[in-house]
Amino acid sequence: MTQTAPLPHADADALVVFTPSGKRGRFPVGTPVLTAARQLGVDLDSVCGGRGICSKCQVTPQFGEFPKHGVTVTADALSAWNAVEERYDRVRGLTAGRRLGCQARVEGDVVIDVPPESQVHRQVVRKEADAREIVMDPATRLLLVQVAEPDMHEPRGDLERLAEALRAEWGVGAVTAPLPVLAKLQGALRKGGWQVTVALWTGDAGPAKVLDLWPGFHEGRVYGLAIDLGSTTIAAHLTDLRNGTVKASAGAMNPQIRFGEDLMSRVSYAMMNPGGDREMTSAVRAAIDGLAKGLAEEAGIGARDILEITVVCNPVMHHLLLGIDPVELGQAPFALATSSAVGLEARDLGLSQVNEGAQVYVLPLIAGHVGADAAAVALAERPDQSDDLVLTVDVGTNAEILLGDRSRVLACSSPTGPAFEGAQISSGQRAAPGAIERVEIDPATKEPRFKVIGSDLWSDDPGFAEATGATGVTGICGSGIIEAVAEMRMAGLLDAGGLIGSAEQTGTARCEPVGRTSSYLLWDGTAQGGPRISVTQGDIRAIQLAKSALYAGARLLMDEMGLDKVDRVTLAGAFGAHISPKHAMVLGMIPDVPLDHVRSAGNAAGTGARIALCSVAARREVEGLVSRITKVETAIEPRFQEHFVAANAIPHASDPFPNLRGVVTLPEPSFNAGGGEGRRRRR
Amino acid sequence: MTQTAPLPHADADALVVFTPSGKRGRFPVGTPVLTAARQLGVDLDSVCGGRGICSKCQVTPQFGEFPKHGVTVTADALSAWNAVEERYDRVRGLTAGRRLGCQARVEGDVVIDVPPESQVHRQVVRKEADAREIVMDPATRLLLVQVAEPDMHEPRGDLERLAEALRAEWGVGAVTAPLPVLAKLQGALRKGGWQVTVALWTGDAGPAKVLDLWPGFHEGRVYGLAIDLGSTTIAAHLTDLRNGTVKASAGAMNPQIRFGEDLMSRVSYAMMNPGGDREMTSAVRAAIDGLAKGLAEEAGIGARDILEITVVCNPVMHHLLLGIDPVELGQAPFALATSSAVGLEARDLGLSQVNEGAQVYVLPLIAGHVGADAAAVALAERPDQSDDLVLTVDVGTNAEILLGDRSRVLACSSPTGPAFEGAQISSGQRAAPGAIERVEIDPATKEPRFKVIGSDLWSDDPGFAEATGATGVTGICGSGIIEAVAEMRMAGLLDAGGLIGSAEQTGTARCEPVGRTSSYLLWDGTAQGGPRISVTQGDIRAIQLAKSALYAGARLLMDEMGLDKVDRVTLAGAFGAHISPKHAMVLGMIPDVPLDHVRSAGNAAGTGARIALCSVAARREVEGLVSRITKVETAIEPRFQEHFVAANAIPHASDPFPNLRGVVTLPEPSFNAGGGEGRRRRR
Repeated sequence: MTQTAPLPHADADALVVFTPSGKRGRFPVGTPVLTAARQLGVDLDSVCGGRGICSKCQVTPQFGEFPKHGVTVTADALSAWNAVEERYDRVRGLTAGRRLGCQARVEGDVVIDVPPESQVHRQVVRKEADAREIVMDPATRLLLVQVAEPDMHEPRGDLERLAEALRAEWGVGAVTAPLPVLAKLQGALRKGGWQVTVALWTGDAGPAKVLDLWPGFHEGRVYGLAIDLGSTTIAAHLTDLRNGTVKASAGAMNPQIRFGEDLMSRVSYAMMNPGGDREMTSAVRAAIDGLAKGLAEEAGIGARDILEITVVCNPVMHHLLLGIDPVELGQAPFALATSSAVGLEARDLGLSQVNEGAQVYVLPLIAGHVGADAAAVALAERPDQSDDLVLTVDVGTNAEILLGDRSRVLACSSPTGPAFEGAQISSGQRAAPGAIERVEIDPATKEPRFKVIGSDLWSDDPGFAEATGATGVTGICGSGIIEAVAEMRMAGLLDAGGLIGSAEQTGTARCEPVGRTSSYLLWDGTAQGGPRISVTQGDIRAIQLAKSALYAGARLLMDEMGLDKVDRVTLAGAFGAHISPKHAMVLGMIPDVPLDHVRSAGNAAGTGARIALCSVAARREVEGLVSRITKVETAIEPRFQEHFVAANAIPHASDPFPNLRGVVTLPEPSFNAGGGEGRRRRR
Repeated sequence: MTQTAPLPHADADALVVFTPSGKRGRFPVGTPVLTAARQLGVDLDSVCGGRGICSKCQVTPQFGEFPKHGVTVTADALSAWNAVEERYDRVRGLTAGRRLGCQARVEGDVVIDVPPESQVHRQVVRKEADAREIVMDPATRLLLVQVAEPDMHEPRGDLERLAEALRAEWGVGAVTAPLPVLAKLQGALRKGGWQVTVALWTGDAGPAKVLDLWPGFHEGRVYGLAIDLGSTTIAAHLTDLRNGTVKASAGAMNPQIRFGEDLMSRVSYAMMNPGGDREMTSAVRAAIDGLAKGLAEEAGIGARDILEITVVCNPVMHHLLLGIDPVELGQAPFALATSSAVGLEARDLGLSQVNEGAQVYVLPLIAGHVGADAAAVALAERPDQSDDLVLTVDVGTNAEILLGDRSRVLACSSPTGPAFEGAQISSGQRAAPGAIERVEIDPATKEPRFKVIGSDLWSDDPGFAEATGATGVTGICGSGIIEAVAEMRMAGLLDAGGLIGSAEQTGTARCEPVGRTSSYLLWDGTAQGGPRISVTQGDIRAIQLAKSALYAGARLLMDEMGLDKVDRVTLAGAFGAHISPKHAMVLGMIPDVPLDHVRSAGNAAGTGARIALCSVAARREVEGLVSRITKVETAIEPRFQEHFVAANAIPHASDPFPNLRGVVTLPEPSFNAGGGEGRRRRR
């Protein structure tokens, strides 16, 4: 395929400089640009192998003086357009200035720019400004090959001649094909006139696998599904494996919820009900199948073009997905059946919508309580590449916590419970239109205002009632309860011990007596037929338990690191993106750092799944990274309990939080019947 | 596991000599015999890894003077029986003179004999005297391992700790486990007190696979199924993979027969009936499943203990088994979908009776007409290791022919048709009780006598009628028709051109007129309500066509080799075992060699399947061997037609057959109406 000998009309060598790589070399006049790129190892894409069919090898020749490269490029540095380029331009249109690298031949010294869309290993820019970029390195690629026709005197099979063509044209080593591919191989070769496009998987060190094939040049693309399988929600991103673009995203409730709301209740269900684990396994697999079907329809592609799937999830979801009874995860020592990354085929999981050859990659688990979701966060955030010490917290029913820098990364999980998700809160609800998500309380008047999901107006803005008429004000979601409690603390309605003051103590009638405690009325919707929404003493206790667990986990990692402060805090998870750093710090959820050192990483676990979907190198990265992460077990560590108790105060009983106190004022009332600071001293 | 440091009571090194290997070395006093064997690379079996459980490492210490080894072995050269050996002897009985290699420790210079049954790579003696032996090297072995318990501070999964134990105790590299094994891993480890017996597959260069596992020490064995999948019959041998013993054998009709008797009619069925190939695929897979079930029941084992399957078959059977439409095999250039060996899992073939982790190995094909059955014959017979030139013929509907010696091996197939199997013969039938299988005709009286399957008596022996009363005399099978035609030729009833003489020409009333031709009456059973069994002129023509094709194929290979004679002939196949060499040579089926240079190799294809079942090394051997065999295509070779025409005469129109004529008298009548030799001259 590549030509090294000068062509007949060659009379000299020409210098070819590729940008942006800077790779350069001298080639005989007449050498195709694609050939020169391949010989220099320049990343220039091609599906058809230089046949002028796929148009993936487009390049932009540069003309004029290039002192940096020591080259002057004249207008005739490349051969004139040939018939293939003219036809391509006529039929499909070639962007001005572009050439097909396989058709344009070098005639003189030339500078060739390879645009990003012509690179196989292009970088995909992520939305988050400070997150690293994804370098495309997909496990599965489409390759067009010309296969030798069978010869009675040379009785190798069609597969063997296909493998030989892949070796000669694409440098592919050993090749295998599963039976379904073998069954369609002969028909495809003959229908395509001995040309076929193969979807070739090279995701591990073993032989390359032909996942599927099509007669002739297949115009289709290869898609992947990145799945973030949570206890409550399954999120899936349908991704174009040529460029990493997300074509469609969807979420679905995890149908296992009917067997138990949280992880431990599902483990219990499996323990109490013979075959219960298999029911849950079937349910989640069917849900993923349904997501695949729906996403393919939404994106207008065939689900059979989905050839890769990556999955991130916590250990219990992991075992249930794979068909492993999770009973061992319900009791110490929380032994995983396997902690390594798992490579599978879609059929192993009974997935019927995607291509029958589709490959599944499940990211490795860090420990019995710290799952592939945490590994995915680590892959997306790479704390091991951070110069300063970064605390990464993925807040959910369990919080996964990573602490580290270039020297070392520690991980733990902490049982925060569902309070941050609005459960166990008197007016709590999931984040949905109508839910209070932002809260402010005037320190002087003690009057609240708030925003609900679905409207940008504050509750005291004109038009709020109309704007929220459709949804009403229905409850408080996780970010709303965090802000409400923090604002109550800043407004002097709540003391450091977590007691809500009475109307007398606070001077506002919104503090209403409920039995022997008080609650703070945020909203009375009864006039509109809606609910009364209050923050009760019980709500405060639930939030205190959750945030103490989170903080204690972080502190345990800091102890292990021998440090009592961190440089940065990253809030990961869909929920983390909606948390106000200031309010989280007032609550004492996270350690004290300058407020602008707290950032949201969005759904970092989902991002990690997407990175692994787009890059084989990233899979090896996360496997290596997980093996280097030190797991710290919270359940058996006595200091965890100490940290937990000390973190019960708001923001904290002993840690001073100087950065926080530099930007907010925290009144220090005490609403305990014993009065003064007595209550804290007695503990 | 292995101990290299001296034990506390060691005070010197002792010389240990193992027989029959002759391997020797000095070891600290106190070293277990098994440890010494492992360090020297002596082939001493163990499943339990030296725990005194499995008793596989039994050895026989030798005492006295051994001048050959320069050793005197005293009675105290090994430690006294310990508690483990005493218990083992009490419970299960230890053969006199035997010790458990893992328990007996070296106390002084000693000679240790390793009996064949304690060797992993033992040789299995085959019944055929001059065939090479099978050296056991199975892909799957049982190994007992002690797995570390989980540790909350060291959160690797159970699979990872199992892999570590396999590495430390057995030197196993990377390990994978399919989902069904992963699903039962945790339960098995806990039930077995962290000991499990794993069935470990190491059949290729990839990671070792855990096919199945059991808690604690699993007493069971690992079985394999060697399948010879013929167009007409499927033969299967249930084999113990520890020692190569065949536990049970069974044959079943290939249910594809209802879609077509021969290969081409099945290819036609697939071409004419959409989905017809899938019907045939399902039918043959179900038949194999049924054979597996029946064999396991017969041998009194669980079918789940069948962990390995090897298959040999012709290319059409191969494609239909794998679910590949065989249409390309029905027309030139007879392109195979794949010619390489195929590794599969039983589930890929929908086999449900055997272990769900069972591995399938399908031997490589030589060409579109020369299948894995011929490859298996080559593996069993190894013509490439023959000093003299050997012609190997596997006679069936197609004859597979191999010709070669150390320098080169050629292969072809020749379309003999079904005449040798009794089809297309007027009184032909399959080889079954009541079928005539041996024939003699007195050259003086022209009277025949014969034997039928199911009785050792000749038809003119007293008691023949009683002995065959149950079955009657029902027809002629393949070996019977060969003998009948050859005897007719030797008795002067048939001329060299293949014409049966009339009663007048031959002087016997058994030559009866049928239209313008004659037939020879072998048996008139009408008095007993049975058939009249004759050899008709049509039968002679059918046999002539079949034997000419066979001989022409052999001659074509001899041409290719540049030779006009061979040194030896091997008749392979179940049918080949029943052919009388003398009669085959009178017929001119095979080239002229001394009669004692013709031997039967039995079912060599089935033997090849068994060898591949028992030995991974043999799989690599046959793959290499097939790649070195030169395929000669008969269908497009003009000389094939010439050889075919010349071979029509009995024994041959031009080849002199001097060895044959040295031992038999061939009268040379001519029954052609034209008289004399004229008929042959006119051709």
